[in-house]
Amino acid sequence: MRTGSVISFENPISVLSFSATVGKKEHEGPLKEYFPDYFEDEFCGQKTFEKAEMTLQKVTVERAIKKAGLTPSDIDIICGGDLLNQCTGSNYGLRDFNIPFVGMYGACSTMALSLINSACFLEGGLANHTASVTSSHFCSAERQFRYPLEYGNQRTPLSQWTVTGSGCVILKRGCGRVKIKNALIGRITDFGITDINNMGAAMAPAAADTIKRFLVDTGTTPDDYDLILTGDLGFIGSSLLVRLLKEDGIDISNLHNDCGMMIYKRKSQDVHAGGSGCGCSASVLCAKILPELKEGKLKNVLFCATGALMSTTTIFQGESIPAIAHLVNIASE
Amino acid sequence: MRTGSVISFENPISVLSFSATVGKKEHEGPLKEYFPDYFEDEFCGQKTFEKAEMTLQKVTVERAIKKAGLTPSDIDIICGGDLLNQCTGSNYGLRDFNIPFVGMYGACSTMALSLINSACFLEGGLANHTASVTSSHFCSAERQFRYPLEYGNQRTPLSQWTVTGSGCVILKRGCGRVKIKNALIGRITDFGITDINNMGAAMAPAAADTIKRFLVDTGTTPDDYDLILTGDLGFIGSSLLVRLLKEDGIDISNLHNDCGMMIYKRKSQDVHAGGSGCGCSASVLCAKILPELKEGKLKNVLFCATGALMSTTTIFQGESIPAIAHLVNIASE
Repeated sequence: MRTGSVISFENPISVLSFSATVGKKEHEGPLKEYFPDYFEDEFCGQKTFEKAEMTLQKVTVERAIKKAGLTPSDIDIICGGDLLNQCTGSNYGLRDFNIPFVGMYGACSTMALSLINSACFLEGGLANHTASVTSSHFCSAERQFRYPLEYGNQRTPLSQWTVTGSGCVILKRGCGRVKIKNALIGRITDFGITDINNMGAAMAPAAADTIKRFLVDTGTTPDDYDLILTGDLGFIGSSLLVRLLKEDGIDISNLHNDCGMMIYKRKSQDVHAGGSGCGCSASVLCAKILPELKEGKLKNVLFCATGALMSTTTIFQGESIPAIAHLVNIASE
Repeated sequence: MRTGSVISFENPISVLSFSATVGKKEHEGPLKEYFPDYFEDEFCGQKTFEKAEMTLQKVTVERAIKKAGLTPSDIDIICGGDLLNQCTGSNYGLRDFNIPFVGMYGACSTMALSLINSACFLEGGLANHTASVTSSHFCSAERQFRYPLEYGNQRTPLSQWTVTGSGCVILKRGCGRVKIKNALIGRITDFGITDINNMGAAMAPAAADTIKRFLVDTGTTPDDYDLILTGDLGFIGSSLLVRLLKEDGIDISNLHNDCGMMIYKRKSQDVHAGGSGCGCSASVLCAKILPELKEGKLKNVLFCATGALMSTTTIFQGESIPAIAHLVNIASE
């Protein structure tokens, strides 16, 4: 059902299982205990960083399906994507599963987008089980979007560190403790930011637009939730988001957190403005938030993942950075 | 409803309008009369080929919405994507519409994928009107996937020519003459083809897998349809597809056609194995097939768009080319 911009799922859509896999640096961060599954080796046993990222997705999906007590043939549809050109992290990482595949691109918002898309298939009775997955890898992202690692470029103060990680969620049509209740598909928002090293600022207005519209259209206030979690705005983008919403009379300062702020020790891990990448919100959601919803520690969460929709080509051509934010309301009952 | 792999839409989902825009070369081909909307100038009035592709999508969506008698604010969701790195043809081309945006990546299968995804939102009652769009541009694709145009590289005999074009379909929840009846979401298929200049061969097995499964799961035969239209297998891939299906006892030779074979004059337009690119099947579908369904000239069509899911990086790393084929069954009543 649709109310304004908000999609409300009328059929019970539940989280059946979830899995996160990260790299060594993420395992050494504040969420260490939540990340038992990690690769010591940045190559994940492969020959290239890109193949490492494909492996991240593959093992994460395998583990999530196993935890659900299912086999790949039980999954009707898998929705996924990643940051690599032509989304090859997913295209190759998922090719052995033989599951009908919906390729998605939402940059760092992909986890929320894939979850919403999966939930819509379930709502329409077009699938009984779905998988939603995404990934990012520091090394494959650096060399694709910035510089070869060997160049050793100096990172600017506002830059964020791409998370090496993947997250996968198995949803089912039917009852369960953790449910997907509502969702909002974001609009492309462009505030004219052109600094590729300040993605938080480019994405904050998109998050503000999405969160505000969700609250207005559902007639709820921030107090109705115990966590408003953004994807990877990092420290700069998060403070901007809080300020932008405050200007509209919405105070989320007490219950907002951001996956990009949670995943690294800000100073000692040298990550500047925080974590980023599709794998950032995906791994934090699957390792910390969904387990806490399952345990009942969290009751009602807004998960709002943000994505910056530029490419190196558009930036070289003087374009600004369009952004998007997709929101999923996940509740524990 | 799901039967085997096939999604059957139980609610009426109708084609409200459609629009195609192409380049000069496409307008000079055999479908000239079907392409009244075209750009003489390969830059589409912009400064770069990438901005030209964004413009292609933008004007095509604008025209389709107008033909539907709607405004952008009437469209609940737009599903789209393209071949450019990070799908910037869509991200920038669609940013001014302010429509909730689902970014998709299916390479040259994107038109079918976006149509299926849109139809699933409509089926679940999560949208009343959707837009599905994709594009490709010969010049932006050449320099991203192959060589700078100025280099003037010689094309191999099996290579295909990327279509400069875009197509957009507006779907609505409700009755209409042309309906989306069934769909099948493809699986990633990899037959080990590594020749980047022979994409037809890489994609043919995916098309065969999808078409065969659709026929088996719906209990229909090729004779139940008046056209089985593939996306952009071109001449080589199409003959392979017909042969692969014949080996399985399925003869589609009399009713198969391929958008990549239809769009150019094979010899005089120097396109070798035919047309390709997301815009190939999108523009042929919107310019020729949907109008013929609307007029009742065609009654029951299987539209099966294929995509090759590699990137230049994966090919440089010695990987083979995974492919996918998504199928939509469109009927005139």
